[in-house]
Amino acid sequence: MKLNVVKIGGNVIEHEERLAVFLKAFAELEGLKILVHGGGKEASLMAEKLNIPVKMIDGRRCTDADTLTVITMLYAGKINKNIVAKLQALQCNAMGMSGADANLILSKKRTSKPIDFGWVGDIASVDSAAIRTLLENLKITPVFCALTHDGSGQLLNTNADSIAAALAVSMANFFTVELWYCFEQNGVLKNRENPDSIIEKIDFNTYQNLKNEHLITDGMIPKLDNCFHAIDQNVHAVHIGSLEMLQGATVHTTIISNL
Amino acid sequence: MKLNVVKIGGNVIEHEERLAVFLKAFAELEGLKILVHGGGKEASLMAEKLNIPVKMIDGRRCTDADTLTVITMLYAGKINKNIVAKLQALQCNAMGMSGADANLILSKKRTSKPIDFGWVGDIASVDSAAIRTLLENLKITPVFCALTHDGSGQLLNTNADSIAAALAVSMANFFTVELWYCFEQNGVLKNRENPDSIIEKIDFNTYQNLKNEHLITDGMIPKLDNCFHAIDQNVHAVHIGSLEMLQGATVHTTIISNL
Repeated sequence: MKLNVVKIGGNVIEHEERLAVFLKAFAELEGLKILVHGGGKEASLMAEKLNIPVKMIDGRRCTDADTLTVITMLYAGKINKNIVAKLQALQCNAMGMSGADANLILSKKRTSKPIDFGWVGDIASVDSAAIRTLLENLKITPVFCALTHDGSGQLLNTNADSIAAALAVSMANFFTVELWYCFEQNGVLKNRENPDSIIEKIDFNTYQNLKNEHLITDGMIPKLDNCFHAIDQNVHAVHIGSLEMLQGATVHTTIISNL
Repeated sequence: MKLNVVKIGGNVIEHEERLAVFLKAFAELEGLKILVHGGGKEASLMAEKLNIPVKMIDGRRCTDADTLTVITMLYAGKINKNIVAKLQALQCNAMGMSGADANLILSKKRTSKPIDFGWVGDIASVDSAAIRTLLENLKITPVFCALTHDGSGQLLNTNADSIAAALAVSMANFFTVELWYCFEQNGVLKNRENPDSIIEKIDFNTYQNLKNEHLITDGMIPKLDNCFHAIDQNVHAVHIGSLEMLQGATVHTTIISNL
């Protein structure tokens, strides 16, 4: 059976109309599915309103206790529950959750050396059997926010891309999984100046060549490394593109094992 | 099979130590259980910090859109997820949810006449079959916050006592349900000046007599009316008392059908 794992980021969540378009397309996706959402800039705006200073170490944001509270309020509260209510209105039986809920995603707090990122977790395990029961027996569409826990009572801020990848990999034991990363571009571009220069299919060899030719650089490298890690762990395909790609009409990038 | 539905309010949630004591006792409760929590004063404090004015109509608080957002952040986000993470650390397989999640509790927005309370919902239906599957098949302890939805995409602020009662009543189709209201007193008092004057057992006849003698008045009447409504709908017993009553040692009030 097929399972789609879809990740959306701040660029979708922050715009009411885009979110509505996305949720309609997501609700219409046939078969089993899981949604993973990040939070975007709302957390920073809320922290500012509450006079919680943004703590940066070596240019990277640190999740101190107050920031974690803001993230928990926004990600698990406002954003997650509004997405759930909207999906329910679209006849999609959504259920919102964090990794703490039903102990579905257990993480380990990132070590504080060399950089102390604060209450940030790296995923240790996913309870794929419980998620399978939610999907198949309860006909539920899980909606995960970017929070996990350490099993000792501590919530941990966890990268939404990583949650989506970990879910896809763990569920590949039971299903033919496709992982969808909706982001601000239409796909991986051959020429960053040209938004239409989308590379439609990338396998591992193509990826090495593109890196050697310096056509893929910077932030795209960890993203694609993640994708290939998922492919190596039996995820059937990874799609990268705009939120419209779910509707099937838009050209986007597909990462596969072998062309 | 027995099911305990336990409701805690702000007086427990707002005090870290009391909450820890309560959660330990709750986690140790044997068998199937559901937790329902309110929010307490934190929502008002957060609204104040965010400069959201408290809107009162005829002396009653109105849930406008901004207030609903604050409630969603605090109840479904901060409070719910922290309780879940803490229960997980106590080996209780908690899963946090609102009524919108998996469409478990559907409400109807309260009519705006004679008083417009804003985004407040009165419970219309509970999906007891889905909750039963969560309890029995997934071995989950649901943790409900005081939010439901209207099925059309709108979250609704919903009284936590009412959610606990509606859950207890609907689950009485499958289980022998006991409903526990943890509040700031040790039980229903015969003499409000004396915290030890706890009435240990009240049936419907006793209740009528106590009302006639004006020993039960004011806010306790709607609370007890709710309790007797639950009893009428086949809830086995309703307990009212301090958070320590779950540990079994404390005298409290039990509402039953007939003495």
